[in-house]
Amino acid sequence: MDDTSDVLIVGAGPAGLMLASNLVRFGLHVKNIDNRPNATPTGRADGIQPKTVETLKQMRLCDGLLRIGVKIWDICFWKSSSSESLHRARREIHYPLDVVDVEDPFVLLVHQGTVEQTFINDLSIRGVQVQRNTLFENYQLAPRGQGEEQTLIAQCTSSDKRSGETLKTKYLIGCDGAHSAVRRSIPGADPVGKSSETVWGVLDGIIETDFPDLWSKVIVQTEDKGSILLIPRERKMTRLYIEIKSDTNASESSKVAAELTKEFVMARAKEIMAPFHLEWKTFEWFGRYAIAQKVAARFSDHQRVFITGDASHTHSPKAAQGMNTSMHDSWNLAWKLNLAVRGLAKPALLETYEMERRKIAEDLMNFDYEHANAFAAGDSAALAENFKTNIRFMSGVGVEYNANVLNPPLRLPFGRNYSGLLKSGCLLPPAMISRYIDANPVHVTLDIPMLGQFRVFLITTDLKRSMSFLKDLCAHLISSGSVLGRAIAKVQKSYAVKPASKVPMDEFDIPGRYTAVSDICTFALLTSTAKDNFELADLPPVLSQSRWSVYLDDVMQTDAHGNGMSCIGKWMGEESLKPDEVAVVSVRPDGYVGAVGLFDNAEAGAAKTWMDEYFGGFLDDDFVAEGLKIASKL
Amino acid sequence: MDDTSDVLIVGAGPAGLMLASNLVRFGLHVKNIDNRPNATPTGRADGIQPKTVETLKQMRLCDGLLRIGVKIWDICFWKSSSSESLHRARREIHYPLDVVDVEDPFVLLVHQGTVEQTFINDLSIRGVQVQRNTLFENYQLAPRGQGEEQTLIAQCTSSDKRSGETLKTKYLIGCDGAHSAVRRSIPGADPVGKSSETVWGVLDGIIETDFPDLWSKVIVQTEDKGSILLIPRERKMTRLYIEIKSDTNASESSKVAAELTKEFVMARAKEIMAPFHLEWKTFEWFGRYAIAQKVAARFSDHQRVFITGDASHTHSPKAAQGMNTSMHDSWNLAWKLNLAVRGLAKPALLETYEMERRKIAEDLMNFDYEHANAFAAGDSAALAENFKTNIRFMSGVGVEYNANVLNPPLRLPFGRNYSGLLKSGCLLPPAMISRYIDANPVHVTLDIPMLGQFRVFLITTDLKRSMSFLKDLCAHLISSGSVLGRAIAKVQKSYAVKPASKVPMDEFDIPGRYTAVSDICTFALLTSTAKDNFELADLPPVLSQSRWSVYLDDVMQTDAHGNGMSCIGKWMGEESLKPDEVAVVSVRPDGYVGAVGLFDNAEAGAAKTWMDEYFGGFLDDDFVAEGLKIASKL
Repeated sequence: MDDTSDVLIVGAGPAGLMLASNLVRFGLHVKNIDNRPNATPTGRADGIQPKTVETLKQMRLCDGLLRIGVKIWDICFWKSSSSESLHRARREIHYPLDVVDVEDPFVLLVHQGTVEQTFINDLSIRGVQVQRNTLFENYQLAPRGQGEEQTLIAQCTSSDKRSGETLKTKYLIGCDGAHSAVRRSIPGADPVGKSSETVWGVLDGIIETDFPDLWSKVIVQTEDKGSILLIPRERKMTRLYIEIKSDTNASESSKVAAELTKEFVMARAKEIMAPFHLEWKTFEWFGRYAIAQKVAARFSDHQRVFITGDASHTHSPKAAQGMNTSMHDSWNLAWKLNLAVRGLAKPALLETYEMERRKIAEDLMNFDYEHANAFAAGDSAALAENFKTNIRFMSGVGVEYNANVLNPPLRLPFGRNYSGLLKSGCLLPPAMISRYIDANPVHVTLDIPMLGQFRVFLITTDLKRSMSFLKDLCAHLISSGSVLGRAIAKVQKSYAVKPASKVPMDEFDIPGRYTAVSDICTFALLTSTAKDNFELADLPPVLSQSRWSVYLDDVMQTDAHGNGMSCIGKWMGEESLKPDEVAVVSVRPDGYVGAVGLFDNAEAGAAKTWMDEYFGGFLDDDFVAEGLKIASKL
Repeated sequence: MDDTSDVLIVGAGPAGLMLASNLVRFGLHVKNIDNRPNATPTGRADGIQPKTVETLKQMRLCDGLLRIGVKIWDICFWKSSSSESLHRARREIHYPLDVVDVEDPFVLLVHQGTVEQTFINDLSIRGVQVQRNTLFENYQLAPRGQGEEQTLIAQCTSSDKRSGETLKTKYLIGCDGAHSAVRRSIPGADPVGKSSETVWGVLDGIIETDFPDLWSKVIVQTEDKGSILLIPRERKMTRLYIEIKSDTNASESSKVAAELTKEFVMARAKEIMAPFHLEWKTFEWFGRYAIAQKVAARFSDHQRVFITGDASHTHSPKAAQGMNTSMHDSWNLAWKLNLAVRGLAKPALLETYEMERRKIAEDLMNFDYEHANAFAAGDSAALAENFKTNIRFMSGVGVEYNANVLNPPLRLPFGRNYSGLLKSGCLLPPAMISRYIDANPVHVTLDIPMLGQFRVFLITTDLKRSMSFLKDLCAHLISSGSVLGRAIAKVQKSYAVKPASKVPMDEFDIPGRYTAVSDICTFALLTSTAKDNFELADLPPVLSQSRWSVYLDDVMQTDAHGNGMSCIGKWMGEESLKPDEVAVVSVRPDGYVGAVGLFDNAEAGAAKTWMDEYFGGFLDDDFVAEGLKIASKL
């Protein structure tokens, strides 16, 4: 038997495990190695941002984390100066809903090791174990015969360097942290960025204090003793960050770092917090960082080797971004790898990974730089303002991609305006809708499980008037005459030999309800036509068979300003969707809005061409004719 | 060592396990026996009503059930007659929010065995196992010496009757179902009720059909072939109920029951559902019931023996009430037994069990009778009307107790009117509030964990004006001069020798935050005074130490009519709470509102007397003076 893995993942931190969990779910043969003997026992990352909560919910992995995590809803700014003793300068809501539109407007504090364990359990249920104590050394392209697929050979050793191992793989992903060995093996991928470093001391433990705001996020700024950041943690703990200013060079920073001991941090914290009393009842972890804001010069090699997470970018831990950005690097890459391994991706698809995530890494550097400056400046009003400006980005829902083959420009009927929230390259705005089949109100971002498939939403306010458009377009989308139709046929062949992973919980979740037509695409209808005015059997076969994703726009919800609105109303904005129109929205497997097109009911032909152009940009639909009999499951 | 258990529970169905789980949590020595070898494997009850979801959330046991259960949000009424073929006559929302005020307005369909397993796991974490294959035979009062506590002796055998066992216990609870052996042992406790019986066939399996409403609750009524009820279940199953009319006597019913086979039910269902096609892909369980609507003549003996659940009342399974009512019998009894075992209860406390739950059993009989009639009458409009009338009762939030020592009349300042939702004997109306200490919005019914303790809410819109009232009352409530203060002292002694159960999850839940003052009472402040206008340290010690239950009334929520309101606004109704007033609300350990008193800020003295009278009605505060040093944990 061939022991070549589809994907070899180096590193089993949040980035590596997020990738592994997704790829294993999609059905790929994954090997995940790590040089550590265990999951992270204490310390390191702990902040889960609102978008990450959504992502983990989409993977059905968030319940346990929400159950045990601490939720930060507000920030308290304290300060002292030569003229004023320590006092609370202001309180702010962390994620105000009129600025950030998220379902879970809080930072969830859960230890990194718990996040890792969540993924490790998921992998274990699916029959995959992390191979530990294994050190990646380097890789090279394997020699290949004509017509053979390119593979890679990775050299590894055991952590004690006593034994070596050669691993064969189609793709190699470095999720191995700031000192990534995979990155070092990629020619010319060295990190680039600011050479000035900041030095951080971080301390976890249970604090006994008469300070009143210990269970909020707290920023304490002093004129001469520096600043500290207090973060409430699970198990009654508090994380305390202290930053030592270093405006000089890297060697200076290292010197400062060496002197920055746990005792120093505790003593400095007591000084800063006076007259409040501070005692550590327990101590769990002390960390010391000298961190540069840097981005790797390259994220990939040969489109066969990629790096994600800290391997590709480093920055300060202050805004609780690291674990989140890292996991979303992998989240962005996972579905693209799935299609590539299955021979369904044009080269353009994998190219979007670096394109999209480099932009985010750079956004993160810029934010981190400004945030650090505002923090260091000691002006709580300026820092609060900086929070407000960057809060969408911090939450994760403001992480947006530029136009590319996956995120084409909006398509509108001639002369039409549009100011809706549905935007290519952005996340699907959260909203409640209801399932036709069982009247359950559901979250539009969460209901359809994330199985590596696209979601094509067909949206109409007047089903009757749009029916002929829908029939025409739907028939096309699964036919051999369309790119998606041919890709669907190819996908069915691929999943027949390499099926998605199955787990006992599927008996309850029944994911197959959402892949009734194809494993690569869930078709969904969203309409404001009243339930009593149509039956599922009236719909075109693609939709009547997708009966668990036929949705009614009948759930009124209140926005942050107290206005009632439905999902279509929210998504389509001021101009709203007209009775003569259909909106066609293709949502990427990572939940980002890909293509958005509005069409007059008479423009079914244009919609077909538009869909073909979209999917033709990145799907490899080259397919031999005999397979077309299984063009879809219908 | 004395092997006398505090409570011997006969039966490990939902009623027995709910009782066991609570009592073990409270720290009692519990023995739970059952004559079955295992938890219910298939069939039997499956419907969890909204109030039961709340109760299980209060026990922190609902996550897993919500994760796997099917949620029923609507009811479809179908009918046929000689003049009309089968058609959908109407659709109704099951729990419309303008009629039923619940957080979870759906019926959760989860198999009884899963509910049992949830409790069994909880018990197991707490070191208690159900003793299976054990048959209860009878009990008698143990002989007792002067000054000794009364105990009971229960005779049991192994299920195969080969060996016998004598169990000693302080209290004996029969949760052993409709054919309860404990009930048979109570003199004069025979069930009383209507002798006419209805016969039911129930069938679980996966149905393949072109019937469009299989994932809603469906009632199909025909003119001549009877009615069926379809309930969607987890794992793609459908539960099908069919009722065979029997207007004659019990022996006739038994005859009908014997002829009611699985094949008969399937054939009849196919006939009724024509022209839709119906095939069973899998079959899991078939049940046959001949059920009388009966209530036991007595629920207790010597105030030492009690029966709960089906042991005390039987009725039809149609409205998914059985498992819910049974668990809430035990929910009602559990905290009263805890106080009784700890010597804190006057006899009046345990007497409220039968008083309260007999009334509910009788309400249930009346509802069941009317519901069955409406069902049998075949008029979908009348049945929908019957639903509407009884929907609060069905959901569980309409289960209300009459005035008694626990539920005294409302206390108002002279001449004041009141039309608020807070009512003695009713459940705490759900609402969102926020915690002062960490700004987390929380559900007022769920935030304080249910540890067998009372919750005393002090509610004021103007903290400054009410401060002297609060200081005065709070100081009294923990002093040796008050009933509650003496009871608190007694409780602390009791919990010192018989502590509440501890589990690893407590490290995250930190229940001790809510019992900072006493294990028998959580004190809570709820105020609309702005957060920036007071500090926790400004509050009277009882409240400043109860810092996790200091709440702000700053969460605006939308009611079913789209009106924004806060918790105090909702609770206090039209007359609202005035700045010169304090509302004192004592919530029972089972979440029912006990005493509601409104006082002018100048009436602290009256409030003290009123609280003493309330707690003096059922708490045994007889206490030797030396213990008063530990009057509270403060």
